[in-house]
Amino acid sequence: MSFLRTPDPNPGWLSDDELAETRARVPMLYVEAVPVRVDADGRVTTVGMLLRVSESGLTRALVSGRVRHGEEVRSALLRHVENDLGPTAMPQLPPSTVPFAVAEYFPWPGLSPLSDTRQHAVALAYVVPVAGDCEPRQDALELAWLTPGDAVSEGVASEMEGGRGTLVRQALASVGCLL
Amino acid sequence: MSFLRTPDPNPGWLSDDELAETRARVPMLYVEAVPVRVDADGRVTTVGMLLRVSESGLTRALVSGRVRHGEEVRSALLRHVENDLGPTAMPQLPPSTVPFAVAEYFPWPGLSPLSDTRQHAVALAYVVPVAGDCEPRQDALELAWLTPGDAVSEGVASEMEGGRGTLVRQALASVGCLL
Amino acid sequence: MSFLRTPDPNPGWLSDDELAETRARVPMLYVEAVPVRVDADGRVTTVGMLLRVSESGLTRALVSGRVRHGEEVRSALLRHVENDLGPTAMPQLPPSTVPFAVAEYFPWPGLSPLSDTRQHAVALAYVVPVAGDCEPRQDALELAWLTPGDAVSEGVASEMEGGRGTLVRQALASVGCLL
Amino acid sequence: MSFLRTPDPNPGWLSDDELAETRARVPMLYVEAVPVRVDADGRVTTVGMLLRVSESGLTRALVSGRVRHGEEVRSALLRHVENDLGPTAMPQLPPSTVPFAVAEYFPWPGLSPLSDTRQHAVALAYVVPVAGDCEPRQDALELAWLTPGDAVSEGVASEMEGGRGTLVRQALASVGCLL
Repeated sequence: MSFLRTPDPNPGWLSDDELAETRARVPMLYVEAVPVRVDADGRVTTVGMLLRVSESGLTRALVSGRVRHGEEVRSALLRHVENDLGPTAMPQLPPSTVPFAVAEYFPWPGLSPLSDTRQHAVALAYVVPVAGDCEPRQDALELAWLTPGDAVSEGVASEMEGGRGTLVRQALASVGCLL
Repeated sequence: MSFLRTPDPNPGWLSDDELAETRARVPMLYVEAVPVRVDADGRVTTVGMLLRVSESGLTRALVSGRVRHGEEVRSALLRHVENDLGPTAMPQLPPSTVPFAVAEYFPWPGLSPLSDTRQHAVALAYVVPVAGDCEPRQDALELAWLTPGDAVSEGVASEMEGGRGTLVRQALASVGCLL
Repeated sequence: MSFLRTPDPNPGWLSDDELAETRARVPMLYVEAVPVRVDADGRVTTVGMLLRVSESGLTRALVSGRVRHGEEVRSALLRHVENDLGPTAMPQLPPSTVPFAVAEYFPWPGLSPLSDTRQHAVALAYVVPVAGDCEPRQDALELAWLTPGDAVSEGVASEMEGGRGTLVRQALASVGCLL
Repeated sequence: MSFLRTPDPNPGWLSDDELAETRARVPMLYVEAVPVRVDADGRVTTVGMLLRVSESGLTRALVSGRVRHGEEVRSALLRHVENDLGPTAMPQLPPSTVPFAVAEYFPWPGLSPLSDTRQHAVALAYVVPVAGDCEPRQDALELAWLTPGDAVSEGVASEMEGGRGTLVRQALASVGCLL
């Protein structure tokens, strides 16, 4: 076992060309978080969804982002939660990095209910309780808190990108909140 | 589906005779918690163990207790964590009640590395981060915080009741802290 | 650690009176199996449901049964699968006894979507691929194989006892077959 | 949602240069399998390890390989199991793609007990029962079946590449076979 290389000072950053090239070659590793509020006993009470403006109009989104070269899965998850929900969200990352689902996104139909026109992406998906104040940053307009029942409704699912309504249902099933 | 019965005002309490009789008839459902401290990223840093005085001397114990008739698993878990660690422990119960392990204790040897001379017990076991101050109550002398490496050592395992060193190793393996 | 007792030659059998008395005292530990067919790659293709005649007409059921005193969870799961699906079902029990859900059934409403008028029961629920021929025994008329889509439909859910449509959805979500 | 692209006829194949370039840019997604034999009840009885000749002498290995662009995780897992164990291994892939662990390999020390001098790799790791005859192919000399106790011994762990002794312990902990 030799350790010839040392960490890059700016690890994982890619130019647009490098990103496009890489996306055509390998599945891109992502993390996704379904933000939730929990009660004093730890039961999920509401589900957070980001509202975004995209080409196809207003869409609902989860916390999602790429794992960079040299970055731990846990660090990537925290980084994207903080990027998307703001620095005061107080997320409680789970002690285990085993996801509730491995979400597979393909740029062509048929292999999965999930899709991503940009790339083949494989996302490790987590339910993340957040205890603090969320201030959506970046391109999100708002963070809406929905009841589990609303979160898995057909209407909400149809507003989610890439078929992620399915992932929200899996998330709520994993915490016993899917009726 | 009919709901003829209403909840007992004092549900789940059993006399000594009733308890002895019941223990001879069915497996007793328990919950167990491995208390942990986590860092800002949610990584487990230390493992909490209770020190108890038992017939065989000083022993180390986990949070553990029976699920009562009419009680939810989550409520039982919270009740026992608060009983054993005190009211200011600030436990973060996981959003899912799926345990990291189903621990089976038998009063006779051979079926499981775990044993309980009193009964056949089946425990749903959880890793529970605690953020606050712990003040062991009841019959515990102290709560000691051990590194994961110390927690899974032979020495510590030999001081645990009923073979629970095995359960601690499973707990730490489930959160990626077993080397 | 002392082992004073030896296994009962007929462990876990209870008279009607003992069973009624015990059900009023403690939660009863159950195992449940959602039988599935899988393709050559291990993907779930269909879900098996038992058709039973009950007081309220025809109902759909999962494999379900009590864990006896002195019996391992795994042995109870195998015993009930064989009882309900016949000796040639060739079930592939999972290598881990961690369930996809802990299903909590109460005799009164409000604590859980699941109910059991007879008792407070806590069931460890598993998805169990079966490779052989199933011949429902005991009180079941038939074993029907449904597509995942049909299995989670409102119509089918309404025909299941105790709200188990919810459990079927959790099962299919856990294997990535819930749309 | 548009589907402009169609699957590549030879998806996921990369030249040596492309592979080297890609490895420097993003974490590479892998699947790993811990092959096991199970008894009639589904309990793990032995663990399969491949013996390989590497630069540093004889080493023990698990089933491991890259997920290709456009390939499902499940298909990659099956492909690598068949490549490494031969066409008659009769693997029983789990119905869920949720791994028992997310194994993170870095080319530099300190972030994880696991390492890979070639790359930053993230592996989804599964316990896979195999029912048939295994004929190791490719560069493996032999497939040895070890008891769980031997599989987690210090001696065996020291012969495994990249610190995978840790992963074997996690695998056995997840199926309740770690003492």
